[in-house]
Amino acid sequence: MMDNNLIYEDERLDDLQCKGYQLIQKPAGFCFGIDAVLLTDFVKIKPGQNVLDLCTGSGVIPVLLAAKTSAGHLTGLELQEEYADMAGRSVKYNSLEDKIDIICGDVKKGRDLFANNSYQVVTVNPPYMTDNHGLKNVYEPKTIARHEVALSLEDVISLASYVLPQSGNFFMIHKPFRLAEIFELMQKYHIEPKRMRLVHPYVNKEPTMVMIQGTKGGKSRITIEPPLIVYEAPNVYTEEIYEIYGK
Amino acid sequence: MMDNNLIYEDERLDDLQCKGYQLIQKPAGFCFGIDAVLLTDFVKIKPGQNVLDLCTGSGVIPVLLAAKTSAGHLTGLELQEEYADMAGRSVKYNSLEDKIDIICGDVKKGRDLFANNSYQVVTVNPPYMTDNHGLKNVYEPKTIARHEVALSLEDVISLASYVLPQSGNFFMIHKPFRLAEIFELMQKYHIEPKRMRLVHPYVNKEPTMVMIQGTKGGKSRITIEPPLIVYEAPNVYTEEIYEIYGK
Repeated sequence: MMDNNLIYEDERLDDLQCKGYQLIQKPAGFCFGIDAVLLTDFVKIKPGQNVLDLCTGSGVIPVLLAAKTSAGHLTGLELQEEYADMAGRSVKYNSLEDKIDIICGDVKKGRDLFANNSYQVVTVNPPYMTDNHGLKNVYEPKTIARHEVALSLEDVISLASYVLPQSGNFFMIHKPFRLAEIFELMQKYHIEPKRMRLVHPYVNKEPTMVMIQGTKGGKSRITIEPPLIVYEAPNVYTEEIYEIYGK
Repeated sequence: MMDNNLIYEDERLDDLQCKGYQLIQKPAGFCFGIDAVLLTDFVKIKPGQNVLDLCTGSGVIPVLLAAKTSAGHLTGLELQEEYADMAGRSVKYNSLEDKIDIICGDVKKGRDLFANNSYQVVTVNPPYMTDNHGLKNVYEPKTIARHEVALSLEDVISLASYVLPQSGNFFMIHKPFRLAEIFELMQKYHIEPKRMRLVHPYVNKEPTMVMIQGTKGGKSRITIEPPLIVYEAPNVYTEEIYEIYGK
């Protein structure tokens, strides 16, 4: 189990505090944040359902979902080879090879990689930012993970709709300022927004993240959940955040 | 000023606790609620801007906006004659005849009543419910005020878009479960959702209302404000609610 040959020199091993799972990360690169953890708490997966995680990065979402849910098989798709390779080693490190596949590939070419109606659940923590002005090295790994240089939100939602059957569920975490655009694209691809939760740093602050569940072919009616508040006071998490991290 | 002949036997006079204004209401009919008060706190009106309030009912929104803002002229449109008449008497009772007009008419025929680009601001607290099943008397005044029997959300948004010039603002309070449909209709009529606030009875409860500002021809980017929490404890309003009512 403790195969340290899987971890390279510029990497570190982070404890996911969940069933003893560890994740390999590159401290100089893009590391997973609270958003990935919150999304895995927001998703609802029925036992045995197959899950496709787009823009999987370090593979944190499939690894956490393997720990927290009774999902069937999980697939993580990652564009950047070095991240896909690292995610694959995390899967191996945790002996999850039978449960999780990491595929290195492009969301834009996803229809060549996956079959129509092939996953009951799609999850995604995509690049958030559209504004690439002033970015010096747009094709650096960190930039690709944060900005829509390699793919657009429409690419993500279009592929999700392709792989989901009717009544299949789509779960995404994103930035609230893009909410109207997100709803518009989901509806364009017949994924109806059904459930949503806003994440606020403090109860009296604007939200910094929004989690959305959409259902392919669903009827127009959305449930908005109570706000998820992160901090009670500076450096003091709310009880709910402690609970989510403690799961 | 205190012309009590304006108030009929089945009516009562409510103190709006705002510049001494009073409102005539019919206790057996549909009375204004916290939603109208919250909406008038949410709206932003520049000095001198003309305002059209659709589905004005008792006229509470134009009367409160006359008190709280520096709006120019305010027009309230109400379908039901008895409410329009009552709203007109409230305007008179408060000596606001120069500031507020109440028109009895149908939103669906609004293009015959108002000119294109004629109001910088449109406000509306429309009937919330689409589900009319099981309603016995669908054309009763209270039913018309609460349910979309006489007009649809699309009628409201379509007329708002017609009377607003480019960059004109639309403010609406509605039920959160219709959020995706609301955004879809606003975008269909080129009113981009730009600002939104959810109203939660308690911080850990689902929202019961949503307030939305849209801008005609606006760019896709929305600001979601901190949640508005109504109660701190049973029967104890939060400080913000006391402030809103105290204004």
